[in-house]
Amino acid sequence: MVEEISLEDIFTKIDRGELKLHELDKLFNDSNKATEVRRRYIESRVNVKLENVSKTVIDFNTVVGRNIENTIGAAQVPIGIAGPLRVIGDYANGLYYIPLATTEGALVASVNRGAKIVTEAGGARSKVINDGMTRAPVIAVPSVIDAVELVNWVNEHFNEVKSVAESTSRHAKLVSIQPFIVGNNVWLRFKFTTGDAMGMNMVTIATDKAVKYILSNFPKARLVALSGNMCVDKKANAVNFLLGRGKTVISEAVIPRSTLEKWGVTAEDVAEVNNRKNLLGSALAHSYGFNAHFANIIAAIFIATGQDVAQVVESSMGITWMESLDNGDLYVSVTLPSLEVGTVGGGTGLPTQREMLQMLGVYGSGNPPGTNALKFAEIVAAAVLAGEVNLVLALARDELARAHEMLGRAGKRSGT
Amino acid sequence: MVEEISLEDIFTKIDRGELKLHELDKLFNDSNKATEVRRRYIESRVNVKLENVSKTVIDFNTVVGRNIENTIGAAQVPIGIAGPLRVIGDYANGLYYIPLATTEGALVASVNRGAKIVTEAGGARSKVINDGMTRAPVIAVPSVIDAVELVNWVNEHFNEVKSVAESTSRHAKLVSIQPFIVGNNVWLRFKFTTGDAMGMNMVTIATDKAVKYILSNFPKARLVALSGNMCVDKKANAVNFLLGRGKTVISEAVIPRSTLEKWGVTAEDVAEVNNRKNLLGSALAHSYGFNAHFANIIAAIFIATGQDVAQVVESSMGITWMESLDNGDLYVSVTLPSLEVGTVGGGTGLPTQREMLQMLGVYGSGNPPGTNALKFAEIVAAAVLAGEVNLVLALARDELARAHEMLGRAGKRSGT
Amino acid sequence: MVEEISLEDIFTKIDRGELKLHELDKLFNDSNKATEVRRRYIESRVNVKLENVSKTVIDFNTVVGRNIENTIGAAQVPIGIAGPLRVIGDYANGLYYIPLATTEGALVASVNRGAKIVTEAGGARSKVINDGMTRAPVIAVPSVIDAVELVNWVNEHFNEVKSVAESTSRHAKLVSIQPFIVGNNVWLRFKFTTGDAMGMNMVTIATDKAVKYILSNFPKARLVALSGNMCVDKKANAVNFLLGRGKTVISEAVIPRSTLEKWGVTAEDVAEVNNRKNLLGSALAHSYGFNAHFANIIAAIFIATGQDVAQVVESSMGITWMESLDNGDLYVSVTLPSLEVGTVGGGTGLPTQREMLQMLGVYGSGNPPGTNALKFAEIVAAAVLAGEVNLVLALARDELARAHEMLGRAGKRSGT
Amino acid sequence: MVEEISLEDIFTKIDRGELKLHELDKLFNDSNKATEVRRRYIESRVNVKLENVSKTVIDFNTVVGRNIENTIGAAQVPIGIAGPLRVIGDYANGLYYIPLATTEGALVASVNRGAKIVTEAGGARSKVINDGMTRAPVIAVPSVIDAVELVNWVNEHFNEVKSVAESTSRHAKLVSIQPFIVGNNVWLRFKFTTGDAMGMNMVTIATDKAVKYILSNFPKARLVALSGNMCVDKKANAVNFLLGRGKTVISEAVIPRSTLEKWGVTAEDVAEVNNRKNLLGSALAHSYGFNAHFANIIAAIFIATGQDVAQVVESSMGITWMESLDNGDLYVSVTLPSLEVGTVGGGTGLPTQREMLQMLGVYGSGNPPGTNALKFAEIVAAAVLAGEVNLVLALARDELARAHEMLGRAGKRSGT
Repeated sequence: MVEEISLEDIFTKIDRGELKLHELDKLFNDSNKATEVRRRYIESRVNVKLENVSKTVIDFNTVVGRNIENTIGAAQVPIGIAGPLRVIGDYANGLYYIPLATTEGALVASVNRGAKIVTEAGGARSKVINDGMTRAPVIAVPSVIDAVELVNWVNEHFNEVKSVAESTSRHAKLVSIQPFIVGNNVWLRFKFTTGDAMGMNMVTIATDKAVKYILSNFPKARLVALSGNMCVDKKANAVNFLLGRGKTVISEAVIPRSTLEKWGVTAEDVAEVNNRKNLLGSALAHSYGFNAHFANIIAAIFIATGQDVAQVVESSMGITWMESLDNGDLYVSVTLPSLEVGTVGGGTGLPTQREMLQMLGVYGSGNPPGTNALKFAEIVAAAVLAGEVNLVLALARDELARAHEMLGRAGKRSGT
Repeated sequence: MVEEISLEDIFTKIDRGELKLHELDKLFNDSNKATEVRRRYIESRVNVKLENVSKTVIDFNTVVGRNIENTIGAAQVPIGIAGPLRVIGDYANGLYYIPLATTEGALVASVNRGAKIVTEAGGARSKVINDGMTRAPVIAVPSVIDAVELVNWVNEHFNEVKSVAESTSRHAKLVSIQPFIVGNNVWLRFKFTTGDAMGMNMVTIATDKAVKYILSNFPKARLVALSGNMCVDKKANAVNFLLGRGKTVISEAVIPRSTLEKWGVTAEDVAEVNNRKNLLGSALAHSYGFNAHFANIIAAIFIATGQDVAQVVESSMGITWMESLDNGDLYVSVTLPSLEVGTVGGGTGLPTQREMLQMLGVYGSGNPPGTNALKFAEIVAAAVLAGEVNLVLALARDELARAHEMLGRAGKRSGT
Repeated sequence: MVEEISLEDIFTKIDRGELKLHELDKLFNDSNKATEVRRRYIESRVNVKLENVSKTVIDFNTVVGRNIENTIGAAQVPIGIAGPLRVIGDYANGLYYIPLATTEGALVASVNRGAKIVTEAGGARSKVINDGMTRAPVIAVPSVIDAVELVNWVNEHFNEVKSVAESTSRHAKLVSIQPFIVGNNVWLRFKFTTGDAMGMNMVTIATDKAVKYILSNFPKARLVALSGNMCVDKKANAVNFLLGRGKTVISEAVIPRSTLEKWGVTAEDVAEVNNRKNLLGSALAHSYGFNAHFANIIAAIFIATGQDVAQVVESSMGITWMESLDNGDLYVSVTLPSLEVGTVGGGTGLPTQREMLQMLGVYGSGNPPGTNALKFAEIVAAAVLAGEVNLVLALARDELARAHEMLGRAGKRSGT
Repeated sequence: MVEEISLEDIFTKIDRGELKLHELDKLFNDSNKATEVRRRYIESRVNVKLENVSKTVIDFNTVVGRNIENTIGAAQVPIGIAGPLRVIGDYANGLYYIPLATTEGALVASVNRGAKIVTEAGGARSKVINDGMTRAPVIAVPSVIDAVELVNWVNEHFNEVKSVAESTSRHAKLVSIQPFIVGNNVWLRFKFTTGDAMGMNMVTIATDKAVKYILSNFPKARLVALSGNMCVDKKANAVNFLLGRGKTVISEAVIPRSTLEKWGVTAEDVAEVNNRKNLLGSALAHSYGFNAHFANIIAAIFIATGQDVAQVVESSMGITWMESLDNGDLYVSVTLPSLEVGTVGGGTGLPTQREMLQMLGVYGSGNPPGTNALKFAEIVAAAVLAGEVNLVLALARDELARAHEMLGRAGKRSGT
């Protein structure tokens, strides 16, 4: 407890600019106390009560400087669960309850119904088809000639650059360096596997060292920015959409005709909704989301499990593909090119987040390293599949219901 | 407290499928008890401890059925504050502390430094230049001829459709219906102002009624999906990027030469980093994010203030533009075409989220309605500006530092 | 005939830089002679024979200064015809032979077969759903505040600006001015109808006058470029894709089941190829061409009829949509958002180009003006439809043929 | 000469459908005669004179069946020349006259002025940084598991597949097969070098054989289409934009301050126009053309030299980058990721087209093979550079001129 008298003195110093809010942690040598004082300062100066924000299980001494600065408390987001959802992957295998931290009504219920359909259909088959975290510094050189020289040098000295890069971390393993040149600008897109971590920090440090090593051989080259926006972090873009970042993962299921019949729809009906909405509509919108609502599921899992929530942007890019099979069943898949997840580092170790990863059996380092993150990616993709299945089926069913309501309405698919 | 004996009975029923997890709320007529029982069931069956998830200020009776289903507890995300940040808008005017719920280390510190620079430069001038939430159903018709007839009818009966749509809500005001046709498919993009709510639910209900009214005049038309992916919700896309969704908002500042000198950089240096990284790099990546890290700030504010976090995807699209002025100052702006925010509804009323909106002076309905959401949009854009200013300045400074380290390095910008 | 002696003198002067190649037209006061002398100069200096280039029906006195400069002769591209193709439009109505100037073997044959299928199916129903040529100057202002002021002023003074703009041409009619703002940059996208001309020059002149009039009221605003790349001319882009430029035109047909049976395919087979290739493949490629080969037909017609061939870029954007109808027929449509065509101006009056437009019955000004260009757009879209129908049907047929070849091959659409 | 009497008989048979227009070549065993008869038939039935179309240097016996079918004559497009333009490449080295077949007034003059500026500045330095023609079949499999198996098999049997593919042509050399998976769909993007040919046909044949060989090992896989729209041919798209197709080529120059001064502009002025128009404007338009008018130059050269004109679509994608150097000079570059050109095959051997390639010294096979096409690509990129330099400089000059006209106008770049 900070005493009231000293508090006023502190507040006055802050008002005068003699003390910065972020210096309180050092002043008290205790981030919990610093958090409280900052919150009280805000309460006093902004004239607001921050009672709920103050109540938290977080020990700020464990997060300030690692996950956040200038803390005043915590946000609380309700968690609902969907499932159990059967996932059949190379790492995940069994029934899982999916934690969704959200305030959007009906989302959990939707994923829950989808999980039931998918599980009854035998489960979601999930597969990670590509893996690697990337960083792409942009380098300025005098001429395209220098650009090509630099790129050639990097190709020829890959192993050398690799050992420099990997000297920074036990877990970062350099997979490739893909070059891009525009005029006198060079981007080198470094791709690493990063064990069970999402790995952006690890990769940033490794790339920093590697690119400085490269440039020490090129006095005419300048490193303009360690991230040259070709990584690509936290923006929807074609590079990750095509080449992947984090895990590229696919989850699929075959929904039997008998299930569809219970919903009163055929596989053709459902595939048609997907074609018109998720393919044609998104084509017209020139979208990176050829899907119904990947982002809902991704965002809710990311908050619940301590992922980097800003990465929902590119992690939720992707394509839902549905087709009616000859036997009347429905094939459904979701493809997520750039799912960026980890089970160590970032916010994964926070109190509530850790518990949610434990619930999924993926908290911390896998054995061997990397397998927890891969398992987690399989589960996330399966949850996304469940969300898509439910929403698109529901749309198909609603459409039919409306058609029946209206007498004299023409058959479904007819030309003139 | 649920008694242990009855708990085992309940668990067995759940195991047998005789009772569903989501039926517990009705069974107990108490969502707090239901939440506890669900959590205990998971603890027992998954063999995991969910102690931290259980500790929350949320009263589940106020959120289940409105914001979420199948609750088991809450996620806690630390909140840091950046600021004070001076914002000069049509609604916001003064100094604000920006709440950022994040687990990404250094983010709060970065926005905080940017806030200082911007505030010392006179503040962030913010302006909402477009406002409206959209929904775009996709409708199937037999032929393009029918498509054009339908669109013409809608144009001619706009006022009629408007009153049908607006009959569903006090706050939804229909602004326009923009049609798109592909072959025998029609999208009608309804745009509404929605008071202080982000408004997606309100707009969905209003559009549903309006489109059914329209289609009652077109027996050959079928509503395939109320969202035809041209709205566009939760996907990065060109429609929102060009035409806006939610608030289209710009924030700008002029950083004086004297400040830049303290950082050891010129306006040209900083603008060059922005041009190479944020414009050229993002051009090459075919990105919707011509910026450094909009998504970081947007995601952190969205979690802290109860926004729909999945909408970070399109809310973080946008462009950072910097130019060196003739007097050596630096002009900086951020343009966010599709910032979807509200101060009522969604998660805004949850305990911690409400407090953060109160801290900003924007909780609940504005007077007149809509002004709180507009004020909030101005503040969010200003915070994004602060984040961009700090990051791009830091990159420019680091580049110079590196250049100085390396003897014999050629002048910055030289051709061969 | 230019005399040999004087030729050598002229060549020497050119070598010495005392005479420029483009000054020959004025020197001889005859562009045919100037063309010959330039060609001979090249033959002599580059040591090449340009016999074929010299043989042309073009009178250079009618094209130099209007269509081209520094002429040396002409390129000859063979023209084949596809058809007759039945087109049912608001302006076109009947059977047309489609002129295709191409060197890509099999293209004419492909469109020809498609024309037969479409014609036998009752013809291509074509409809222009939007019409207008655009120009979008980019204007720099000090601040977003000025940007908004400028835009508001333009909206309030639309009629005034309209009369200024329309004072430059009998045919240019200003339809709308759509504003876009990024920070301190404003784009004003002027949209005009332009009679039977494609209209880019007309619109450039009208916009130039209008924007200067606007800016005379805004001393702080600068016109950076009359084309600010938001027009958008000769680049694939989302603005034209969504909002149209030139004619937005759709052509469709219903191919009867009986025809499909002759090809050995079902409507489902054909729609599946379209879905996987033209929708899914192009989604993954993040393409503006959700089609098989629009560009082939557009380019060949554009060369044959004197259109601006560089505009093939955006004129060939678009979407092919196919679906199997309940009665086993196949619905097919092509949607071209940005088809930029004219029947007066540009290269339409050149000897061979004029004849090709005459063959289509669309040469010169329509009665009333604009109807020839609209009719032409309907025919072009119908030809594109024919090209798509043939190619996608052929792919579906080939796929089946391959499947039959391979014994033991599983049924077409089966999950595992 | 076909006799009049027999002509009428033939026409009647055609009218009755007893004879097809495309059967005339075989009937007469002479495509020149067939061309004449077809033209006369059209003249008679459509009631149009096709005199100019009839006059051509093309011998139809050499083009029908190879380049075109159903011929009726030829289109004539005037050719102007720009230059001489100095090009400094790995293959091109010297002064070149650029042939431009166009009907857009001022285009040749613009490139001509740009060529002068660039040549006086020392020439355009051109470099091909990537080379390869691609084809990407789309294959349907039952499941993602099969998709991964297939891709793994291809990776393990690359050499085997390579020899199968290369058995179809002397010139096609398989460089790589890049796989993409979406759900149960696989695209294999084959990349080949193709000597001096643009190579699309060669690559199609080679890919056809290779993919059938691959699929003979996968009875459950179906080849849906040999082109799965990930090649990508004749559509603007991110795959070619990022990974290249044909030649990826860059051309650059440094325009000295002294030249800029003659135009009355500074390097900053010019770079600013490029930043606002070509980068910012195209960013907002979500364009694949971050340039002023690449397509104009590409289209005009493609027509003149017998390239596949529909490929202007992706060949004209690209980025213009300009920056002011510390010494007041201007660095300019153009980057064309997907320039698809050849000097053998296609329309390169036609009478006028061949002469234009000869004028550039690149007609036919290079020694060693491939070098003519590479040299040609260097020249084309240099011409594009000239076109950009002139247009952007002119815009900067005009802007200044306007600023001077208007008294009291504020300094160029000033904030508020």
